[in-house]
Amino acid sequence: MADETARPGEFDLIARYLRPLADDPAALNLTDDAAAFTPPPGADLVLTKDMVAAGIHFFPNDAAASISRKALRVNLSDLAAKGARPVGYLLGLALPADWTADWMADFAAGLAEDQRAYGITLLGGDTVKAPSGLTLSITAIGAVPSGTMVRRGGARVGDVLFVSGTIGDAALGLRLRLGTIDGTPAGEGAGHLLDRYLHPQPRLALAEAVRLHASAALDVSDGLVGDLGHILKASGVGARIEAARVPLSAAARALVEADPSALGSVLSGGDDYEILASVPRDHVAAYQLAAAAAGVPVTPIGEIIAGAGPALVVGSDGAPIRLERASHDHF
Amino acid sequence: MADETARPGEFDLIARYLRPLADDPAALNLTDDAAAFTPPPGADLVLTKDMVAAGIHFFPNDAAASISRKALRVNLSDLAAKGARPVGYLLGLALPADWTADWMADFAAGLAEDQRAYGITLLGGDTVKAPSGLTLSITAIGAVPSGTMVRRGGARVGDVLFVSGTIGDAALGLRLRLGTIDGTPAGEGAGHLLDRYLHPQPRLALAEAVRLHASAALDVSDGLVGDLGHILKASGVGARIEAARVPLSAAARALVEADPSALGSVLSGGDDYEILASVPRDHVAAYQLAAAAAGVPVTPIGEIIAGAGPALVVGSDGAPIRLERASHDHF
Repeated sequence: MADETARPGEFDLIARYLRPLADDPAALNLTDDAAAFTPPPGADLVLTKDMVAAGIHFFPNDAAASISRKALRVNLSDLAAKGARPVGYLLGLALPADWTADWMADFAAGLAEDQRAYGITLLGGDTVKAPSGLTLSITAIGAVPSGTMVRRGGARVGDVLFVSGTIGDAALGLRLRLGTIDGTPAGEGAGHLLDRYLHPQPRLALAEAVRLHASAALDVSDGLVGDLGHILKASGVGARIEAARVPLSAAARALVEADPSALGSVLSGGDDYEILASVPRDHVAAYQLAAAAAGVPVTPIGEIIAGAGPALVVGSDGAPIRLERASHDHF
Repeated sequence: MADETARPGEFDLIARYLRPLADDPAALNLTDDAAAFTPPPGADLVLTKDMVAAGIHFFPNDAAASISRKALRVNLSDLAAKGARPVGYLLGLALPADWTADWMADFAAGLAEDQRAYGITLLGGDTVKAPSGLTLSITAIGAVPSGTMVRRGGARVGDVLFVSGTIGDAALGLRLRLGTIDGTPAGEGAGHLLDRYLHPQPRLALAEAVRLHASAALDVSDGLVGDLGHILKASGVGARIEAARVPLSAAARALVEADPSALGSVLSGGDDYEILASVPRDHVAAYQLAAAAAGVPVTPIGEIIAGAGPALVVGSDGAPIRLERASHDHF
């Protein structure tokens, strides 16, 4: 039997779990209908909204703190790729009827941890009953000096393509979890891949370098090749990337060696949340230096070439690699 | 068998139905990861987010254009009550698997119509698969001259309480639809009440008057008495309202006369989306003039009194009216 005292109504839920997250004066302690937000002077606001839903973007039995952090981080990842500094966020929370106080406390603790880590605060939102599965809708707000948001459409022939971190870990982590891949990485490898799926790391430390040096950028959320395609389409250019230069973790490399189908997951699987950036050649050295100073590894994987069309992916022999699909479709 | 050509994937869906709604340059044609929004100089942004879910806030078989407009309007209503001019919005759309092209076209047409009516534009958003029922999460952005957002906490003893329009229509419309009320209003009365439930009218025309003259305000979404309680709590005051002065439509008045239980729905039912404002006595005449100039009827229903606590509702004999509940709980 449900303990009703442990399951407050909307106002108590907000007061107990969410108000402690809203320490910016603009949030008015979540006691008003809206936030009163004073934009930083001279800034453009970078506005992004990503929804995540149970069974589509996460497993319903994932830890609550993992779900809430993933929902927030996928939004922060967009801000990072646009070169923006995060400012705050609004949280829309459609809660299924069977939520518990423990679950909600864990959910809020995850957000609190990330707010500290990323220097942001909750500005407002809404909490409603979900028709069935948990659905989160976060609107994140970032800031850039006016006119400097990095877009998808600025890549030019000759630019070098860089990705941050390693690619494919999350997609392989998901396949491990689903049991759809042969082989298991040794040691802590499996844990690493599963963690990369559960806990994306928004590359906010790289945002300033991206803003100063990239001609175009986005975060890799649906798959490297497919997301690169968005840059190419918006920029009216092509690209050639070398599969062997795509940076892999040791665990991912082991899986690719054990099961060649894993390479497809690496190149076109989702949930990496690394930054793919095109960098003009005269900015390459500065971008690499700025990334190193920020503590974020970046790797050149190819270049922008003339001619519109999907990215050409070549193997170490120079021959094109044909992918079954370019990206992972969450929709 | 489903016609797959009529059911595009996420990118085509956005291009076909949502991109035409996004004609502000900040939206970048919805082809980027984020909007690049230049705030109006000297303004505070008013940020609000309301989610609506099938079976909770609307009937799954409501017309798509009614659902989309309701989702947008409940957000615009918050902006109006805060004295803000609407600027734009982001749309989070969790779509069940059985959506059709016709449904989506109707959904977008409703938004297009309201965008024209209210002078706003779509800035960005996200479209995902819904675990089951349709869920919409809208973040609306408004603007006020810096420091002038009308809050809940400014009501002072002696202020006059005004509501716009008529109260209770939507709650009675819902009861008519559910068949939980005796009597049927004559003529077009039932249609009026049902329409008030389906199509809230955000009082944006009144926003400037509210901003210039109200000490506190909110939109009545969960019920007049309950929502007044939020102003009282935030302001540390009490209120006395006279039930007989609460403005009713002819249809609502007929139902209250036929079924006394209807008075409870009027005073504590949800979905009115009228503006409740406390107005200092030396601003009352100016507020009434400004409201008349805006074409929005406003009616004084009581006053702010000393002492914290829930609103005192009195009948025409001066005796307190006891309500079963103060508000409608959507949660």
